[in-house]
Amino acid sequence: MAQTPEATVVFGVFNETSEHESRVALTPDIATRLRKAGVSCLIEHGAGEAASYTDDDYAKAGVTVTDKQTILDEADALGFVDRPSEQMITQISKGTWVIGMLGSFTDEAYVSALQQAGLTAIAIERLPRQLSSAQSMDEMTSQNSVMGYKAVLVAANEYGSFLPMMTTAAGTIRPAKALILGAGIAGLQAIGTAKRLGAVVTAYDVRPASKSEVESLGAKFLDLGLDFSKGQGEGGYARALTAEEQAQQQAAVDKKASEFDIIITTAKVPGRKPPVLLTKEGVAGLHRGAVVVDCAASDLGGNVEGSTIGEQVTDGGVKIIGAPYLASEVSTTASNLLSRNVGDILTHFIKDGKLTVDMNEEIDQAMVVAGDSSQERKGE
Amino acid sequence: MAQTPEATVVFGVFNETSEHESRVALTPDIATRLRKAGVSCLIEHGAGEAASYTDDDYAKAGVTVTDKQTILDEADALGFVDRPSEQMITQISKGTWVIGMLGSFTDEAYVSALQQAGLTAIAIERLPRQLSSAQSMDEMTSQNSVMGYKAVLVAANEYGSFLPMMTTAAGTIRPAKALILGAGIAGLQAIGTAKRLGAVVTAYDVRPASKSEVESLGAKFLDLGLDFSKGQGEGGYARALTAEEQAQQQAAVDKKASEFDIIITTAKVPGRKPPVLLTKEGVAGLHRGAVVVDCAASDLGGNVEGSTIGEQVTDGGVKIIGAPYLASEVSTTASNLLSRNVGDILTHFIKDGKLTVDMNEEIDQAMVVAGDSSQERKGE
Repeated sequence: MAQTPEATVVFGVFNETSEHESRVALTPDIATRLRKAGVSCLIEHGAGEAASYTDDDYAKAGVTVTDKQTILDEADALGFVDRPSEQMITQISKGTWVIGMLGSFTDEAYVSALQQAGLTAIAIERLPRQLSSAQSMDEMTSQNSVMGYKAVLVAANEYGSFLPMMTTAAGTIRPAKALILGAGIAGLQAIGTAKRLGAVVTAYDVRPASKSEVESLGAKFLDLGLDFSKGQGEGGYARALTAEEQAQQQAAVDKKASEFDIIITTAKVPGRKPPVLLTKEGVAGLHRGAVVVDCAASDLGGNVEGSTIGEQVTDGGVKIIGAPYLASEVSTTASNLLSRNVGDILTHFIKDGKLTVDMNEEIDQAMVVAGDSSQERKGE
Repeated sequence: MAQTPEATVVFGVFNETSEHESRVALTPDIATRLRKAGVSCLIEHGAGEAASYTDDDYAKAGVTVTDKQTILDEADALGFVDRPSEQMITQISKGTWVIGMLGSFTDEAYVSALQQAGLTAIAIERLPRQLSSAQSMDEMTSQNSVMGYKAVLVAANEYGSFLPMMTTAAGTIRPAKALILGAGIAGLQAIGTAKRLGAVVTAYDVRPASKSEVESLGAKFLDLGLDFSKGQGEGGYARALTAEEQAQQQAAVDKKASEFDIIITTAKVPGRKPPVLLTKEGVAGLHRGAVVVDCAASDLGGNVEGSTIGEQVTDGGVKIIGAPYLASEVSTTASNLLSRNVGDILTHFIKDGKLTVDMNEEIDQAMVVAGDSSQERKGE
């Protein structure tokens, strides 16, 4: 205890759980960790319940479990799974810090509202992910990783056959063929999980660099039988594809898709319309019983043309699952990782016991979207 | 085609699908196989739909897709996932063969009804499983294997954390600890699947012999810290435990269970009340977020005291899933295996192009529960 500094920053987290949100931005372990960094924590009643953390678990970790108003009154910084509603922004005291997925790339009006309320706003979506010092703050990586894992479990659970090959007295069952479209963090985790379960895994991404990443996980890179290398850009860099080439590429993916039993699409773009990776023609070519999980399904559309949030079965017997909330469904692991990310962002901004923005810091420069550039902890 | 014998036996299969049944007793591949053995097949419209086989798939395999009455009129033998209803028995012509899970160990009245209707009844539950010639007919093995696989997928899908250990920038996630109670066919498949997914797996079975089977799959055998070896029976055989010892054993399992995140119980006994493997005290000791899948849940109770068919969450935040229909949920694989089992039973009884019982045969002796001991194909 002698080494625990006096708490100089009060961090508050609300209960954000809803029908589609089971995560919490603070878990008991991270509260303990924050306490050692001079942060005392407040949490709203029931905030961790859906992630299997009771109020009692928080109290044991030294967190004050309280009501929303007390948190609004007392917290110097607020951490969110998502972001405060515009209505809540008006309730937050001037000078308070807000850390969350603020949608700052697409929602200028929202950022203006934060600025006008006199808040210091830290946009997690702007984290400079390439910095090694930022890796433990990388919520997009942690949550996409959970999403990729869960997408395979959902697909395996819906699929009417085994994923692994099995040799039994009543015949040999061939392994399922899985295609992962989009080989970012989520896609790579999906590859790993599908391989664990014994599926034969192929993946595709428009980024040519992803081929080696896919292959390093023991999966095949989808061979479209197309060669766009002609007219390559200077210095060996890939040039942008022409519209015609893009159409060729799409048609080739659609055609190849028919060979697979399970397709998982992972190109989720927060706040924006996701790219179509599989068209209606592609879906129509799939065999009866095939399962498609579209992690990017949203009201703006998904990676699969015609997908909607929830489950649908096509006339051809293909099950399409529009699943935008997959990370939240693995609520405990997702919360543990997210809480660590948010906690590390918070402590990054604490200098000499005070919340401080340093615009000479690359992380600060990238993430602070509202507030005085030299903002210090409120009341000082 | 020259090698395909003239069809002398007509085999019919009905549409048995219901809310809890997605399997079918004949798949197109097996129909092709049966044709080569001199069997022509009839199937009721839509029978394979839930297992992703269309009427058209059957027609392409040479199966006549027709209505129930035509099958009743024309089939020499009928194959069932389950068994014909007592009402249907009255509709089946005298001399017809019925192959299904007839419940003959527990339902004498039903067997009498088959006998009185003049049917030849082949009880799959009586297959002499130890015979190597019977292995491809072993529906209990094939379906329990599917059940064990699916039980793990259901548990993994409900569990709020990862099953595998993961080392990430935001911390290391410990692997889930899974306990499989009952290490028969289903339990062994559950062990294998949970291990695939990266869980640390422990298993337990009251049969002392199962220890080596569990360990050969790389799982730990649950050490109860009890020694019942004193007073061992003659020749080194295990003696039956006294009531007091059984109570000690149960209490020890309940106590050990608290260390696990996922518990799967697999001691399903068709038609009978399943044994309790985990009591209410055991469930009460589990941590919040733990998941229990009870494959034996039924109206007579399950392996988990207080479990019911469907999902419930205890006051302590433990999710208990009573899941008696797991094999059916992997409908394509389960049907493929089951259809092979039923098909091989059928062809076993065809001698010189005729359905024949030979009471000198061990399989015949065991499985024929109704009919003339020298019964031949009806109409002959």
